[in-house]
Amino acid sequence: MLKIAMAQMEVIPGHPDKNAATMLRMMDEARTEHVDVIIFPEMAIPGYLLGDTWEQTSFLADCEHYGQEIIEASEGITVMFGNIAMDWEKMNNDGRVRKYNAFFTAQDGKLIAPAGQDYPFVIKTLMPNYREFDDTRHFYSLQQLALEQGKNPADLIAPVTLTLQGKSYNAGCLLCEDGWSDNYALEPLQILQDKGQIDFFVNISASPYTLGKNNKRNRVFGQQAKEASKPLFYVNAIGLQNNGKTVYTFDGASTAYNEKGQVCAMSEEYQEELTIVDMDELASMPALSDDKEPDIAHIYRALNYGVRRFLENIRMKKVVIGISGGIDSAVAAALYAKIVGPENLLLVNMPSVFNSATTKGLSKELADNLGCQYTVIPIQHSVDHTVEQLSNTPIIYLTDGSEQKLTVSSFVTENIQARDRSARILAGAAAAFGGGFTCNANKAETTVGYSTLYGDQSGFLAALADLWKYQVYALAHYMNDEVYGREVVPQGIIDIVPSAELSSAQNVDEGKGDPIKYPYHDFLFRSFIERWQKAAPEDILEWYAAGTLEENLGCEPGIVAKYFPTAQEFIADLERWWNLFTGMAVAKRIQAPPILAVSRRAYGFDHREAQNGPYYTLKYQQLKEKLLS
Amino acid sequence: MLKIAMAQMEVIPGHPDKNAATMLRMMDEARTEHVDVIIFPEMAIPGYLLGDTWEQTSFLADCEHYGQEIIEASEGITVMFGNIAMDWEKMNNDGRVRKYNAFFTAQDGKLIAPAGQDYPFVIKTLMPNYREFDDTRHFYSLQQLALEQGKNPADLIAPVTLTLQGKSYNAGCLLCEDGWSDNYALEPLQILQDKGQIDFFVNISASPYTLGKNNKRNRVFGQQAKEASKPLFYVNAIGLQNNGKTVYTFDGASTAYNEKGQVCAMSEEYQEELTIVDMDELASMPALSDDKEPDIAHIYRALNYGVRRFLENIRMKKVVIGISGGIDSAVAAALYAKIVGPENLLLVNMPSVFNSATTKGLSKELADNLGCQYTVIPIQHSVDHTVEQLSNTPIIYLTDGSEQKLTVSSFVTENIQARDRSARILAGAAAAFGGGFTCNANKAETTVGYSTLYGDQSGFLAALADLWKYQVYALAHYMNDEVYGREVVPQGIIDIVPSAELSSAQNVDEGKGDPIKYPYHDFLFRSFIERWQKAAPEDILEWYAAGTLEENLGCEPGIVAKYFPTAQEFIADLERWWNLFTGMAVAKRIQAPPILAVSRRAYGFDHREAQNGPYYTLKYQQLKEKLLS
Repeated sequence: MLKIAMAQMEVIPGHPDKNAATMLRMMDEARTEHVDVIIFPEMAIPGYLLGDTWEQTSFLADCEHYGQEIIEASEGITVMFGNIAMDWEKMNNDGRVRKYNAFFTAQDGKLIAPAGQDYPFVIKTLMPNYREFDDTRHFYSLQQLALEQGKNPADLIAPVTLTLQGKSYNAGCLLCEDGWSDNYALEPLQILQDKGQIDFFVNISASPYTLGKNNKRNRVFGQQAKEASKPLFYVNAIGLQNNGKTVYTFDGASTAYNEKGQVCAMSEEYQEELTIVDMDELASMPALSDDKEPDIAHIYRALNYGVRRFLENIRMKKVVIGISGGIDSAVAAALYAKIVGPENLLLVNMPSVFNSATTKGLSKELADNLGCQYTVIPIQHSVDHTVEQLSNTPIIYLTDGSEQKLTVSSFVTENIQARDRSARILAGAAAAFGGGFTCNANKAETTVGYSTLYGDQSGFLAALADLWKYQVYALAHYMNDEVYGREVVPQGIIDIVPSAELSSAQNVDEGKGDPIKYPYHDFLFRSFIERWQKAAPEDILEWYAAGTLEENLGCEPGIVAKYFPTAQEFIADLERWWNLFTGMAVAKRIQAPPILAVSRRAYGFDHREAQNGPYYTLKYQQLKEKLLS
Repeated sequence: MLKIAMAQMEVIPGHPDKNAATMLRMMDEARTEHVDVIIFPEMAIPGYLLGDTWEQTSFLADCEHYGQEIIEASEGITVMFGNIAMDWEKMNNDGRVRKYNAFFTAQDGKLIAPAGQDYPFVIKTLMPNYREFDDTRHFYSLQQLALEQGKNPADLIAPVTLTLQGKSYNAGCLLCEDGWSDNYALEPLQILQDKGQIDFFVNISASPYTLGKNNKRNRVFGQQAKEASKPLFYVNAIGLQNNGKTVYTFDGASTAYNEKGQVCAMSEEYQEELTIVDMDELASMPALSDDKEPDIAHIYRALNYGVRRFLENIRMKKVVIGISGGIDSAVAAALYAKIVGPENLLLVNMPSVFNSATTKGLSKELADNLGCQYTVIPIQHSVDHTVEQLSNTPIIYLTDGSEQKLTVSSFVTENIQARDRSARILAGAAAAFGGGFTCNANKAETTVGYSTLYGDQSGFLAALADLWKYQVYALAHYMNDEVYGREVVPQGIIDIVPSAELSSAQNVDEGKGDPIKYPYHDFLFRSFIERWQKAAPEDILEWYAAGTLEENLGCEPGIVAKYFPTAQEFIADLERWWNLFTGMAVAKRIQAPPILAVSRRAYGFDHREAQNGPYYTLKYQQLKEKLLS
């Protein structure tokens, strides 16, 4: 029997010392289990999302040093791992040292080079540069190397030949994207297969969690194993990595596929563990059953893990949440209470004259349900003082000595309230409490900037900002039903109309609230950002004209006509939100807190954007004219 | 005579309709001048920095439409221009439609393909993906195309043959980075030259302004023209483009190099203009004299243009600046006063008990010098109220009903003051005044997060955040001496010790102030971000041990020993700031306003970073131990 250990380790980005220590520990554990081959993830030593830390030469040399430690510790075991590999004699296109995203295989203290290759490691061939990925910015690809050497890329792709228990094995070594070659001109796995005699494939990855991705990978990688009729070991990291604005959980879910393409073993999501399989038994192992959990269970797991690790990373133990009696802050409170414990969670209700007894009562009910720290700090005195100061302090025009006073409109006062709550009360309370305060914005609000800068848009982390409003509701139900097993988020909060309660026009007791019509706008906004082929007003209007809008957006049939009886109303609404989405909301997102990503496209580094203002194509304008005439 | 017009247009990113209109207007002007060839910049139609707008199919089709308009308008004139080019039948590696960064040449309504090529346009070969550039994310390069077709990239590079005044000319067409091939495996210009019979080169660019870049380009491009012994026309855009967090001016400076490599004609920086040269006369034209202006003149020009266009883009006519009596806010005030006019500039001084009569007096003096709108809004009442509310409102622990109160430390009160000024007063005053308020942070503060989130770090734009403190002082002198020709920034503000005045420990009259020792830290911090090979503590400590630190940093000799008599003090200081730079300051930069870039490396999209916490390499730790033993 040949024991393969998938070492699903937690990779700490930017801390090679800690990662090497984890690897040595897991290698010891594997030895005790008589493992033949231990496989670590891609970039196991440096981490993967490091921003431009890749430009620090001393950091690179440090990674090389720790990689050498792992190589030297491979006495009696075969270790496969990802690390950054430098060719100190050569340069990248940017004039900095040559760097490869590399797959190392070491045995008895020595590296095993791929057959017939100069470098003693496998080089990543396909470089993702969509979404949050920036591989091409730092890593020299095998294709570029081939160009430099005047060779065919296939010449540089070769198996790694291992001797295990006295027998020779050819391993087909792939790095992450190499296994997702659908749209590339090269298929590394196919090239390896064509070169023949591959005994098994190994794909080491640093693959961030995305809702639905694991099922897709099982289809794609299962198919590859089946077509090649060889087992495939996929080893992914766990942990939390970020690109500044966007924060990703890595769920692991390392998987062994047998030669029939079936999933035979899978490491538990978000758990550091050594999953050991016997290669000779793989073919006869029963396939694991398909994942039947609802999406919201996956989302909750990602949020819970992500927030927990984020807090640990920034060494924050206490959290303050401003609660309004609305759904977003309530869900945030229930989520954080599970993570920091009710004794470390301070909920603050900050009423003004516009806040109803209803929402004040619901806030208290929520806090009671959680048994956390709770206080009520009213803002009316401060808001009145601010309005008074701004209105009554004379402004002198020093060119001619004339005086004027500012007029504070009700719209300006709305934002004064929001900033008073966050920048004055919550920021101060969090500092005094010894923690941070949260941003509870959802993805619909984030899309159109329905929030106040330095007000409810602030916080140390926006944990719910990649969730549409319907997902926030689903999360409330999931936490009540599954996580807590009791009504923690009060039914009254689930039932109440979403409202900012910043003016009498937003009176919840009269059913007044947000201008966002979530059952439609959630889906409209989703098409702007999450569709692979992004939708813009031209597409929306074409679908509207063709009567296929709801089908294309995935929202409830008939809802558009219900909200917008005429084309004029429909178009006015579309342009209102498109103008915000590509206008003020971009300015707000630039200054938004980090966003925890769960969807196929999150705001921030995942969806890059420029503050260029709204634009309507010529075809849109023509279609609009036709619809309005 | 053969008249070539370099059409240095302002490109409005994301607005193909406006850009096409500009191009048609300049083509008309060129026709009046009997121009033979008019050359527009790279990506003249879509703009260049668009974030992921490149993923909107309807936008791409719109760009194609406007490109077709330009082609059709080329009756009687040869037009060269940059646009995005789609191959709708093919895909990029990300599964989206195939996109090329393309150079089109049209004559009499028809495109002229490069000799022997399938596509009727030249494809960008070299794709920059350092700094703010993201070309590889969206554009398929000529190298990738060659790989797909199983060809050598050189096979796809060919001149464009034009008939001008009945004579045939071979133009060597390059796109921006194609002319900066030093570190690439391919040199497009050399390949063209080797194919022979090139009559002149054209490099169309979208090249953001960077301090010192134009001189470097004149050396590099001049050398290319000289070696090839052919004229080279470099055409760059003007305008303002951004990647969200980082905002770039495009200075144009379009240049004609003669066959001796001399600069014979250059369009004025930041001016939309048609610069017409007679190709036959180039060889005999006198070389322009070298740029003799000091750096600060270039910086002022970039800031002035950048801020002006930024305000126009967001339709902001009025600006509020909180002035403290310190240098940063004073320089910001003098800069903005020139742009919006004193009548639209409101300076607000917001004293607490810690603000000295000195700085209050200097604030008024500055406002008098500018003749702008001025007001004083004290914050003490509000700060006292906040501290009182936070300290006296009981917090109930709902699990056991116990009560506690928060303790507001003097450090917490410092930040309460800063947030009171920005999020309460300035944000409210700006909204009531009908404008926005500025962030006046400099680059040293931005490096280590010496600012308060939602406090002095806020604003709609951080115009000075790419300037080191010494550059802010230089700008004060430049504005007094050259821009205003009188003392606008009071000498008292230039002379006073930099201080936040948030506590009695920061009393300016006692010479107390910032913990940042600018004459050293400006240069230390610069080495962390601006060096091409980024310095980290290991490098700093090695230089320190070798006695070459000041030389490597470029600061005043002897200053390090003066500030830090012992290695222990030196190391404590280094770690203090490195911990902040890679720790809390990253968290703050994620939520910082957009930064106007002038240096070779600005914060934001230009210098990507992850919130991964500080790290010290093993070699650093060993060296530290040695120095401290």
